[in-house]
Amino acid sequence: MKLEQIDTPAALIDIARMQKNIARMQAHMNTLGVAFRPHVKTTKCIDVVRAQIAAGARGITVSTLKEAEAFHAAGVNDILYAVSIAPSKLPRALALRRQGCNLKLVVDNPTAAAAIAAFGDQHGATFEVWIEVDTDGHRSGITPEHESLLDVGRILHENGMTVGGVMTHAGSSYELDTPEALAALAEQERAGCVRAAQRLREAGVPCPEVSVGSTPTALAATQLNGVTEVRAGVYVFFDLVMHNIGVCALEDIALSVLATVIGHQPEKGWAILDAGWMALSRDRGTSKQAHDFGYGQPCLLNGTPLAGYVVSGANQEHGILSPTEKGAHEANGDITQRFPIGMKLRILPNHACATGAQFPEYQAVAPDGQSVPWMRFQGW
Amino acid sequence: MKLEQIDTPAALIDIARMQKNIARMQAHMNTLGVAFRPHVKTTKCIDVVRAQIAAGARGITVSTLKEAEAFHAAGVNDILYAVSIAPSKLPRALALRRQGCNLKLVVDNPTAAAAIAAFGDQHGATFEVWIEVDTDGHRSGITPEHESLLDVGRILHENGMTVGGVMTHAGSSYELDTPEALAALAEQERAGCVRAAQRLREAGVPCPEVSVGSTPTALAATQLNGVTEVRAGVYVFFDLVMHNIGVCALEDIALSVLATVIGHQPEKGWAILDAGWMALSRDRGTSKQAHDFGYGQPCLLNGTPLAGYVVSGANQEHGILSPTEKGAHEANGDITQRFPIGMKLRILPNHACATGAQFPEYQAVAPDGQSVPWMRFQGW
Repeated sequence: MKLEQIDTPAALIDIARMQKNIARMQAHMNTLGVAFRPHVKTTKCIDVVRAQIAAGARGITVSTLKEAEAFHAAGVNDILYAVSIAPSKLPRALALRRQGCNLKLVVDNPTAAAAIAAFGDQHGATFEVWIEVDTDGHRSGITPEHESLLDVGRILHENGMTVGGVMTHAGSSYELDTPEALAALAEQERAGCVRAAQRLREAGVPCPEVSVGSTPTALAATQLNGVTEVRAGVYVFFDLVMHNIGVCALEDIALSVLATVIGHQPEKGWAILDAGWMALSRDRGTSKQAHDFGYGQPCLLNGTPLAGYVVSGANQEHGILSPTEKGAHEANGDITQRFPIGMKLRILPNHACATGAQFPEYQAVAPDGQSVPWMRFQGW
Repeated sequence: MKLEQIDTPAALIDIARMQKNIARMQAHMNTLGVAFRPHVKTTKCIDVVRAQIAAGARGITVSTLKEAEAFHAAGVNDILYAVSIAPSKLPRALALRRQGCNLKLVVDNPTAAAAIAAFGDQHGATFEVWIEVDTDGHRSGITPEHESLLDVGRILHENGMTVGGVMTHAGSSYELDTPEALAALAEQERAGCVRAAQRLREAGVPCPEVSVGSTPTALAATQLNGVTEVRAGVYVFFDLVMHNIGVCALEDIALSVLATVIGHQPEKGWAILDAGWMALSRDRGTSKQAHDFGYGQPCLLNGTPLAGYVVSGANQEHGILSPTEKGAHEANGDITQRFPIGMKLRILPNHACATGAQFPEYQAVAPDGQSVPWMRFQGW
């Protein structure tokens, strides 16, 4: 199907840009001498994940057991479920292991570690568990010097579970926007996670893997001594938040929302689009960054960004495209002529993970302009 | 299935609350002597819509053609597609009409009106079209005194289309929070839409229907002279935004997200939940209201709100539950004891339309605590 024929709103993947992003990250990992485990929560799409594995990824990271189930069914075997597991989810994890899936769990507290060990003992199962380390205080995990790190390691190890490694995610990288700050956080992430592994090993708990990563720190890292693998998700598409952080150009962003002009408010300089927050998502991740892109950056159908315009507002199925500077619509001429009814535009999203999740499928666009549907799934 | 057995995160509908909300709105419409056409974009769920129709709704309002197709297939015939139509969507609209669907289109500009008339003429089809009126300047529509109102009416009427009526949506009601301001906006919405109908009729364009509504103005209206029907969507579930506006109590909110405690950061007073923004949505609609509920209000499993706690942060699959006042976690005791690993909570959402959209199904909970899945759909 050609772009002009696709019903709007639609989520477009620019395949050439996606492949370039995949190659860039994998080459950087190869240079650093570490394995790469992409986080597939961004896309939940087997077509994308096949491209990541073909480029050299060792396995995948998932954020839900549904992702683990779906990707294992599609042939992926090495899967890290990177959210500290709720004990009530252990039966689903066990079912996956019994289907042959090399599923690794994550935990960051003694209670859940004991629940895993008890459940494993009860069912004659040995779970592989990685311990989550907190290297930047932004969310979950155990700080490297905290006593409970060793408690968790011992509970697992002494009760017959396999401690597969330690993992951390320096998600506060999303708040930075200079190469120096990113490089410093990447080093903090590396050093903290390596230190946690060291403490476990010194306490007699095996800890073969040391896994770090977020898209900004993965790209900013210059040495990863002691690290065995890196995880990153949004790099595969990039987005406006990543552009503001400084790790991609607008021209690298591989996801956009195709929209149609359906109305105007000429006195206000507005064009109304048929893509509202249901398509663009409610994510306003750029609102606190140096450049606020509203609900997204409009581009022409060929991908050229329309400087001076932004999607400034969004209701469920309506987007408001307006000039970024008040009064600019007068200088730019009549909005109804500039963006006539029926005109199609591509909107670059603030956050590719959130925008993609609004759609049951992507339209993957090849360099010749032809597109094919790539399914993605929803739910838990 | 019992609440305790449901995998988390899950979107729960409290059926008793939902039925009470449906009955309240329908009774108010009956008192005002107008028909009611609920907006089903909130739920996209046939089980909910059947309850609305059983209570007396005349038909439904939809925000996408996919909703029109899905609900027509499920037996609903009287459908208003309340977004100004992109001409490229006319073939899908025609297909629905030819299947016997009493589909009404909406338009707010001469270009699209002419496109509808030309497409109808080309295919020997008479579309019923309602003209969108702008009564509060918040988004789309034609202001009641604007010349293009009559242009659009004449283009449709003189080219063989049926002008079915005028419709407006005073969406700026979401910015208000006093009964007086809501009543004033309800009257502004009514008067503006009635005036637009009067102008069309005086110009010789038939205009049988006058349709107004948003949940806050629908509930605040005290007389609707000249109006024939009202539309509202979110009233069926209500949410924290509606609570802040003042049109429902916390105890009326029928949608909640079931979540499990999966970790803690005791020094910060945080409990970590397995419901992040993928479950709760990125909607922060209460952030500019008098009471900012963060990403949602936590409640016990029985529905009792946990005063003094809020979901203060959210990543994709992690929510952060914390005290609303800094230092309060010390006064409240150890967060790990108050919210132990594995504890289940219900989170009231900021915006039911956005939160529901994150889920492929609801779990509808009956008064006896048993739940059944109610499917909802995604996409366009």
